[in-house]
Amino acid sequence: MNAPPLKFEQLGLIGCGLMGGSFALAMKKAGLVKRVVGYSKSPSTTERARQMGVIDIEAPSALLAVSGADLVLVAVPVSATEATFKAIRHLLTKDTLVMDVGSTKREVIDAARRVLKDQVGVFVPAHPIAGKELAGVENADADLYQGRQVILTPIERTQTVQLEKAAQLWAALGCHVQRMSPEAHDAAYAAVSHLPHMIAFALMNAIAGHEHGKQFLALAGPGFRDFTRIAASDPSVWRDILLSNREELIAQSRQFQRALHAFESAIAAGNPDALEALIDKASQTRSRWRMSAHKPQS
Amino acid sequence: MNAPPLKFEQLGLIGCGLMGGSFALAMKKAGLVKRVVGYSKSPSTTERARQMGVIDIEAPSALLAVSGADLVLVAVPVSATEATFKAIRHLLTKDTLVMDVGSTKREVIDAARRVLKDQVGVFVPAHPIAGKELAGVENADADLYQGRQVILTPIERTQTVQLEKAAQLWAALGCHVQRMSPEAHDAAYAAVSHLPHMIAFALMNAIAGHEHGKQFLALAGPGFRDFTRIAASDPSVWRDILLSNREELIAQSRQFQRALHAFESAIAAGNPDALEALIDKASQTRSRWRMSAHKPQS
Repeated sequence: MNAPPLKFEQLGLIGCGLMGGSFALAMKKAGLVKRVVGYSKSPSTTERARQMGVIDIEAPSALLAVSGADLVLVAVPVSATEATFKAIRHLLTKDTLVMDVGSTKREVIDAARRVLKDQVGVFVPAHPIAGKELAGVENADADLYQGRQVILTPIERTQTVQLEKAAQLWAALGCHVQRMSPEAHDAAYAAVSHLPHMIAFALMNAIAGHEHGKQFLALAGPGFRDFTRIAASDPSVWRDILLSNREELIAQSRQFQRALHAFESAIAAGNPDALEALIDKASQTRSRWRMSAHKPQS
Repeated sequence: MNAPPLKFEQLGLIGCGLMGGSFALAMKKAGLVKRVVGYSKSPSTTERARQMGVIDIEAPSALLAVSGADLVLVAVPVSATEATFKAIRHLLTKDTLVMDVGSTKREVIDAARRVLKDQVGVFVPAHPIAGKELAGVENADADLYQGRQVILTPIERTQTVQLEKAAQLWAALGCHVQRMSPEAHDAAYAAVSHLPHMIAFALMNAIAGHEHGKQFLALAGPGFRDFTRIAASDPSVWRDILLSNREELIAQSRQFQRALHAFESAIAAGNPDALEALIDKASQTRSRWRMSAHKPQS
């Protein structure tokens, strides 16, 4: 593990929101970058990011943020990734490390293949498992990624040297780095994140649509609070995530509905043994589960 | 509000678990009862309750726990309520206040009507919204009910005097007391508790049944942790609750599935506007919601 000390000259940051802004702050705090040139679609966001010291220089376009950068972070909504790649491809060099922070990977990778073509090897798809309920550069936090998992999903054309640099960089920010295929990533996050969000959204809408929904909500307690916390998530962000993982999400939603029907059948049949067996399986699975985000990197 | 000071001679406690044991401790702490005579189906539980000072005297049967009691709390699983009423009815007097603590009310009330017949007026159905993940008398806690909501669901034959006593008693334990019909209660708790539990159980089973379920779970983070916390609940307790509220639960599960299908349709159609509108409705409903258990009683 005698890797040369990791240090970048210039981070080109496309998207100065919570995720991108926190990355820039974390890179500066760790002393990993000399200067940050930032661009956001909204000029007022870019200006605010500079005023806050998140970025050093405002770029008037995504392309100019990339000019001279040896590290590029694309921290835009998944649906804007392809347009961003198109905007920046002409100034990417063969040594520039390019990463994203998207919650789904296959669609982003398809866009990268289409747009970056021969240059796709410099792109290392990344998903840091971190966030906050409050978005925006105002909530950027140098410690957002500290202690969290980062999943890298390289493809066969990803350059080994860029993949190693990416892994070292996130590790230097205090993250636990894992690698997996884009397909395995998207299937796993459909199960543990995207489907739970869709279910929580649907439950809120079902209750809101009930004649006495308001009275119901007035009686809800701590179990409901925790179960529905993710339903308060940002609509445009989650619209993109759910759409970009639609195949896995719908397949797993069907599996969930089959599991739900097993409960309904046992209940409708008044079969206490079958019902208890179903609950027992769920309860044991959940009781044995421990969140592993804080396991030391092996 | 010049009610006479509330004080009971003898609490007959049927079921010395978490709910019943905590009630006995709270009554003692508040100085509302002189002695507690307890009975549990398992003699070792009853003995442990006496050793812990939760009860003062062990009764060899439910009937003998009720003998001489002016207050009876039936704190058994909902499915055991009817048998308990049968066991104790011969020693109930017209002045005994009888309450339960069940999470569903219509089935308990049907049992009370069938078994208690002319005496049903002394029974005040109660649902204190409190609990812990760890059951058993070992976890009994004098402050379990402090600051929590208690829903009383009287029927037309409930005696006003008993209803008033019940309301005073729970208020004296620091609870916020609400009254509603058994039907409204069961519909509301299907929505905010029973259906969320069934969904959380079903999601755990769907993931556990997936070929790569173990790998999925290894990647789950804080959102998943909160969303599935209720899936670790006690199987026999929740078997009873789900079965005893089956009509409302299944009706609301169908409404939830219709709401879920609206998401699937927008996603399958690749319709970002429709999907964002659905998420936005859910997100706004959840963001506006505030848990009201701690509102002062009006």
